[in-house]
Amino acid sequence: MNILIVYAHPEPRSLNGSLKDLAVAHLTARGHAVRVSDLYAMQWKAAADAGDFPARDASARLVYVTASKDAFADGTQSADVAAEQEKLLWADAVIFQFPMWWFSMPAIMKGWIERVFAYGFAYGVGVHGGDRWGDRYGEGTLLGRRAMLSLTIGGRAPHYGDRGVNGALDDLLFPIHHGVLFYPGMDVMPPFATYQVDRMPEEEWHAVAEAFKTRLDGLFTDAPIPYRRQNGGHYDGQQVLRPGFGRGTSGTRLHLRQAGDPEQTPLQRSDGGGPSLRSG
Amino acid sequence: MNILIVYAHPEPRSLNGSLKDLAVAHLTARGHAVRVSDLYAMQWKAAADAGDFPARDASARLVYVTASKDAFADGTQSADVAAEQEKLLWADAVIFQFPMWWFSMPAIMKGWIERVFAYGFAYGVGVHGGDRWGDRYGEGTLLGRRAMLSLTIGGRAPHYGDRGVNGALDDLLFPIHHGVLFYPGMDVMPPFATYQVDRMPEEEWHAVAEAFKTRLDGLFTDAPIPYRRQNGGHYDGQQVLRPGFGRGTSGTRLHLRQAGDPEQTPLQRSDGGGPSLRSG
Repeated sequence: MNILIVYAHPEPRSLNGSLKDLAVAHLTARGHAVRVSDLYAMQWKAAADAGDFPARDASARLVYVTASKDAFADGTQSADVAAEQEKLLWADAVIFQFPMWWFSMPAIMKGWIERVFAYGFAYGVGVHGGDRWGDRYGEGTLLGRRAMLSLTIGGRAPHYGDRGVNGALDDLLFPIHHGVLFYPGMDVMPPFATYQVDRMPEEEWHAVAEAFKTRLDGLFTDAPIPYRRQNGGHYDGQQVLRPGFGRGTSGTRLHLRQAGDPEQTPLQRSDGGGPSLRSG
Repeated sequence: MNILIVYAHPEPRSLNGSLKDLAVAHLTARGHAVRVSDLYAMQWKAAADAGDFPARDASARLVYVTASKDAFADGTQSADVAAEQEKLLWADAVIFQFPMWWFSMPAIMKGWIERVFAYGFAYGVGVHGGDRWGDRYGEGTLLGRRAMLSLTIGGRAPHYGDRGVNGALDDLLFPIHHGVLFYPGMDVMPPFATYQVDRMPEEEWHAVAEAFKTRLDGLFTDAPIPYRRQNGGHYDGQQVLRPGFGRGTSGTRLHLRQAGDPEQTPLQRSDGGGPSLRSG
């Protein structure tokens, strides 16, 4: 299979660098094809701005969404953005390797999302109108691909537990898991989180590496997070979860399928990666 | 009072630009002193990297936390970072004006947080050891200041309601509200969110502007989000919410104080802004 690793850390000799290197070596040894987008090494442009649209009239007021739509449709996106989109279409799975900073991904990686996830590519896909809000949340251009966050965390695991002071890790990652990765159609794997990384003794590396390899081996077979599909019948025309769904839960957990829910038939990736126009 | 506006939008003629201009004019007319950090105009460096530490041995392995700690303690931070910290210490309130992109703040603003919120300034403050995990979540350098997000959203409000498909807005903003702003001690106001901004008719601007002015007028008198203080007795020595707190809730709402909770005495800002070393 084809696997893209999007990696963000300013120091190659970091734990993040080691995890990235391990993933490349392990996945390659398993027969996968691996490509890496090393955002710091690439000096990835983090800020989304008018410079992303070289063919645009520079004197006109910038409406980023419209400019993104036009550039994607016309094939006039900046070359760095188009190259990353090509990698995503090539990939069967995408691994994001990063340190959690202030409870989210590093700015340079957020800027990769903002610029690469263009209108017509990652949003604004499919029919919009009436009760139909496009192909998103379980449908879209990246349908049939898997995504997994591998993140390092300075704090301790109990601080990120269900009642931990920082908030539960799955709540903190919901904007990324659900809003960034599930949105354009990817199946999202549970995260691989390594805690207390600032104080990790050398001898703990072995255990971390083995655990990571196990997760890499299950990348295409482990169960993804069971988010509800937008167009699978669980949400109404206002995109509000229908009464009767999500009983006994609240918050982000409302958006997880439960035993007893009407079945949502899995969608199939249709081809090499073009936008999916199937309805849910 | 002194108010800092941290503003991120690449187009001055945007709704975000208009909201920023309105805030400056309205707050100034009310007698406040206002400063603006216009991150795009400043060409703010978004990526946290070795360049943030000009006095550091460039050949040594970069551990960002350690480098940040040393540079803050030694007074060798880069000038742009030190200038923003000075603005934060000057401010009685901080308003963040931005478009929500992929369910979070723009990368350039995330990079402002990563670089300005240094070790010793926004984290690593106070005693760490035993059951004490520092002055954070309701204590810290920015104690006594208020913070408010003013964000524009392309989608519709029902999509962000308690059962909306995108997730509830307060869940999506929890990593920022709680993890970024409450963490170093600020009182966090409910957000001012403007929806459907890509299709806003000109005549709706007046209503939005009036609503924003009302929120600006209440900046120092409206009630902040009632997050629990870390060191106020609600969390145990592992920073896990004690049994008996948060009954009937789950997820991010566990961290909101409830009627019937033991009282948490409000802390007072001690002076012009130095780190608070009070215990909870």
